[in-house]
Amino acid sequence: MKLASLRGGRDGRLVVVSTDLTRATEAAAVAPTLQAALDDWAQAAPRLAELAEALEAGLVPEIRFRERDCLSPLPRAFQWADGSAYVNHVALVRKARGAEMPPSFWNDPLIYQGGSDGFLAPHAPIPFLDEKYGLDLEAEVAVVTDDAPLGVAAGAALGHVALVMLVNDVTLRGLTASELAKGFGFFQSKPASSFSPVAVTPDELGAAWSGGKLALPLLSFVNDAPLGRPDAGCDMTFDFGALIAHAARTRALAAGSIIGSGTVSNRAADGGPGRPIAEGGLGYSCIAEQRVVETLRGGAPRTPFLKPGDRVRIEMRDAAGRSIFGAIEQAVAARGA
Amino acid sequence: MKLASLRGGRDGRLVVVSTDLTRATEAAAVAPTLQAALDDWAQAAPRLAELAEALEAGLVPEIRFRERDCLSPLPRAFQWADGSAYVNHVALVRKARGAEMPPSFWNDPLIYQGGSDGFLAPHAPIPFLDEKYGLDLEAEVAVVTDDAPLGVAAGAALGHVALVMLVNDVTLRGLTASELAKGFGFFQSKPASSFSPVAVTPDELGAAWSGGKLALPLLSFVNDAPLGRPDAGCDMTFDFGALIAHAARTRALAAGSIIGSGTVSNRAADGGPGRPIAEGGLGYSCIAEQRVVETLRGGAPRTPFLKPGDRVRIEMRDAAGRSIFGAIEQAVAARGA
Repeated sequence: MKLASLRGGRDGRLVVVSTDLTRATEAAAVAPTLQAALDDWAQAAPRLAELAEALEAGLVPEIRFRERDCLSPLPRAFQWADGSAYVNHVALVRKARGAEMPPSFWNDPLIYQGGSDGFLAPHAPIPFLDEKYGLDLEAEVAVVTDDAPLGVAAGAALGHVALVMLVNDVTLRGLTASELAKGFGFFQSKPASSFSPVAVTPDELGAAWSGGKLALPLLSFVNDAPLGRPDAGCDMTFDFGALIAHAARTRALAAGSIIGSGTVSNRAADGGPGRPIAEGGLGYSCIAEQRVVETLRGGAPRTPFLKPGDRVRIEMRDAAGRSIFGAIEQAVAARGA
Repeated sequence: MKLASLRGGRDGRLVVVSTDLTRATEAAAVAPTLQAALDDWAQAAPRLAELAEALEAGLVPEIRFRERDCLSPLPRAFQWADGSAYVNHVALVRKARGAEMPPSFWNDPLIYQGGSDGFLAPHAPIPFLDEKYGLDLEAEVAVVTDDAPLGVAAGAALGHVALVMLVNDVTLRGLTASELAKGFGFFQSKPASSFSPVAVTPDELGAAWSGGKLALPLLSFVNDAPLGRPDAGCDMTFDFGALIAHAARTRALAAGSIIGSGTVSNRAADGGPGRPIAEGGLGYSCIAEQRVVETLRGGAPRTPFLKPGDRVRIEMRDAAGRSIFGAIEQAVAARGA
């Protein structure tokens, strides 16, 4: 099934969405909000699935579904923990900075605790604060868990994946290096993220969801020009089971915890950095990685970070070309807007 | 006024507590939970204050208030961001590790994003996972904000402090160094924190709340032996206004955001590390700092970290010796319990 949160209050109004993303039906009789459904997921999930079936069959009242009416599926969450599972991305970024990546990064997942008190709506503008901050997108996959116990193993952890969605983990590149150096993790360099209009249960993904990875191209665009289409199932060093197990090593994860994959990144066939889309490669899921490759190849970055008026789109299509999650579609706001 | 969350559901049941912490009255008519009250704080706060007055006057139904019936005031929160405002503490810990503290730490606040999806109750046992993890307490002061806008200045930020409370920021010392080295901040080294039974509005603190600091001794005990009684108003390099402004530099803070002071720590009169309580000093708010001082003075730490069965108590008393927030009182659970 597919779920979304329409505008209404701080936590939105839960609806079940048709598979083709054209229609929706109110889910208030099951749970008023997605968080409330997740708080009682064992009871709520089967009832929401029934509602989804009834919606497909035209048996329940329906409204027109518009992605622009959506908040993020969880408009605010009790946890947003973002991994860096595509270690290729980390290695590349460090290389461009002339910094060595510790070899342990290939075995020990990197996860930072992100701010979760307020997410941007999937079609809301991204605030633009300061040119120096280097505004960037990061296209990622994320899962939402139900209650996952302390110390859950990676295999069992996958049983706690309730929903899957896409993320734009908005990043201020000009602030990351100094925050990394302080050791306390990202804070000011990570303003509010946004999530895809729709969150889906793993069964909606069919064979593409396997081994805790989502094996489909993640499409990113800037001003309608394709930036990246890497396969989220490739080069993911730590699958979602490993990420959840890492996060739950010393504390339980409460229902509604969002765990992110980190920026999706594929290597080229020769093992080196992927090539840009314009050269027939799979491109990148953030501008920083494109700039890194430009620097490694030409000595300097050429692609600028985002500026007011720029537009970002992130989506994923199934084998038949149909949008699975709807699109994150955001314009960068005017300065100070 | 003083507020608490009694057991009941994931978010507890909001009650107003008498100033002397002996009685309480249900606040459901105003808001079912503390988060709901904070979501509409401008409306809810005056009504809760009226209820508090009526409770003191014996005009409303009342129940016996017991600290052991409490959850943390926010049993789960949308944000827990913890500073290191007592830079003295950071400098000492680094010194003992033989690491240099960057001078910028005196001007640029350190804040990490903490896990907030589930806090321990103030009298709940602390899980004990592994001897190697080095289980420690950290006694701190924290504030809860209402909606604080993006870019709020330090002075104006203090107007967004809705509530004040105490924290035990439970820390696994054996895991901090490697997480600091990774740069992504604390994650596994910070299991669930616990907060004082009662959260209070700043006006309850009288003159002790001044300039964004709480100028009273913060009392910590391990197995009933005093560990520390530093004044939380002394040596706080960044007041709560500065911490909130730092946290809100690139994103708004939503109502119910918890901002922590970091481990409270006072220097000795000569500017050096404070002396242990046993030697007439003000002691420490965590075992790690006591061990650091032992190491600096005697070459090795003598005080062990917490083990199963150990008991921790954290509280603060007003000038007349009355408990303000109730006490955090936790036993360390048996291994694997």
